[in-house]
Amino acid sequence: MTAAQILPAPPDWIAVDWGTTHLRATAMGAAGPLAQASSNDGMGTLTPAQFEPALIALIGPWLTAPTKILACGMVGSRQGWAEAKYRTVPCAPLDANALTRVQTHDPRLIFHIAPGLRQDNPADVMRGEETQIAGALALNPDYDGVMCLPGTHSKWVHISAGEVVSFQTFLTGEMFALFSQQSVLRHGIAPDGFDGAAFDLALSDALSRPEKLGARLFSLRAEGLLANLSPIAARSRLSGLLIGMEFAAAKPYWLGQNVTLIGAPTLCDIYAHALLQQGITPQTLNAADCTLAGLSKLKGAL
Amino acid sequence: MTAAQILPAPPDWIAVDWGTTHLRATAMGAAGPLAQASSNDGMGTLTPAQFEPALIALIGPWLTAPTKILACGMVGSRQGWAEAKYRTVPCAPLDANALTRVQTHDPRLIFHIAPGLRQDNPADVMRGEETQIAGALALNPDYDGVMCLPGTHSKWVHISAGEVVSFQTFLTGEMFALFSQQSVLRHGIAPDGFDGAAFDLALSDALSRPEKLGARLFSLRAEGLLANLSPIAARSRLSGLLIGMEFAAAKPYWLGQNVTLIGAPTLCDIYAHALLQQGITPQTLNAADCTLAGLSKLKGAL
Repeated sequence: MTAAQILPAPPDWIAVDWGTTHLRATAMGAAGPLAQASSNDGMGTLTPAQFEPALIALIGPWLTAPTKILACGMVGSRQGWAEAKYRTVPCAPLDANALTRVQTHDPRLIFHIAPGLRQDNPADVMRGEETQIAGALALNPDYDGVMCLPGTHSKWVHISAGEVVSFQTFLTGEMFALFSQQSVLRHGIAPDGFDGAAFDLALSDALSRPEKLGARLFSLRAEGLLANLSPIAARSRLSGLLIGMEFAAAKPYWLGQNVTLIGAPTLCDIYAHALLQQGITPQTLNAADCTLAGLSKLKGAL
Repeated sequence: MTAAQILPAPPDWIAVDWGTTHLRATAMGAAGPLAQASSNDGMGTLTPAQFEPALIALIGPWLTAPTKILACGMVGSRQGWAEAKYRTVPCAPLDANALTRVQTHDPRLIFHIAPGLRQDNPADVMRGEETQIAGALALNPDYDGVMCLPGTHSKWVHISAGEVVSFQTFLTGEMFALFSQQSVLRHGIAPDGFDGAAFDLALSDALSRPEKLGARLFSLRAEGLLANLSPIAARSRLSGLLIGMEFAAAKPYWLGQNVTLIGAPTLCDIYAHALLQQGITPQTLNAADCTLAGLSKLKGAL
């Protein structure tokens, strides 16, 4: 958590990334970011009436006058502060004409939420990633190819002519968390560390035999009992198995394509390592940078 | 929970099935079962010193003299009451010469634990299922073929000439529990109910495209949001996806083989339904009956 401090001059506007588990705000001036603040008041912990107090608790010191705030993420979901209805692909990732204005009690807040994207067939949704994609396109305006956003719900996105053409979401990160923390495997999985050789073997195995997942998972347990498999090797194999299965299914996205990774640096490093094994050299962008670039692009279009 | 009552005559011996989450005892007479008792004092909730009190709390009324007790299951694991070291396949599922005698404070308890089985390559283990297999073989002495024991950790077992030749464990049931109860899918999954058409489509899809698992899981969430997917259909699709992936990997076990299912009736029904789609007509045995038959066979060999 980082609390906001009073600024020498009021911000022009405030960018807000409000996800399930976090709330991050950036005070913006004419030349860019002035200050940042964050808290754990994610959408998942708040009832609708608690969003405004949580926001004011975080950024109150910045609010000396009515201030435009642009937000993205799960704050706009049906269980969020106010629903910002999905836009349907194919379309540009963000549209300044499709924001949801939220009525607030505090007159200093002029609060807008950017909507997520939906795809009807196969059914899929995103919220927050569309802003990262818009930011990546703002940083690389003529980009054509694929963006991969690894995370709890990893997304592979086909980009052409500035639009999201199609996308597919994988439960990879959530599976990793469930298996490593909640399953019978949890006692044999290290909390961190990376064994490249163990990862590579598991990645290649899952790419060629993805149906073996359930058996390979139990093997981690059995090898822990019978052969003293190290917890770091077990963690790396679990990661390789799940990313390998994702890569097997996402092959139409990455094969022979430009690939840009957008995400947390540690996770992007693992995905980049795995893509290099497949002969793909990705470009990597930081997710927080992309979110800010996306919201800034949106602000410029208002 | 069912408590034990005082019997008209003392039992000849007592059969105990002591797993991670349950403790079940059967008082045995010359002609078979006399009475049953069960509690939730599974191995997972007990420290080593708590096993003897938990057992006496359950079967105290049956103990009028020193009584032989034969137990199987996780009670014999390293985290159990006393470790009963695995026997290595290929071997008969049980061996009366390989029991672990546990020293007790109460002189009425003559407590023995049957060991589980291990396979070194690929590494795999079982505890409790070996007794069900022994029971199934006692009921069908000349059986050659495959036994499938669906459950938290489903097992496929190749049986020949009265021995376990090889086996493979799948995390299928635990994955089902994690995804349906702990993941983002949990709000859209019914607690029970079965939609056969939804199950069959998912089963067939996972058999042919097992690598799609992570994407198909997220689709359950997205279709819930966008297309009002029913919670019973979602539950049945989740089940079909996971069993389909297991069947894809276990194909060398079941293809063209005699298959016997051993497990809880509801789960065996689903597996039998899925096997019929593959042209396999399985025989089904009740797991509790097999455990008792296995321990009885062991008692007869002492």
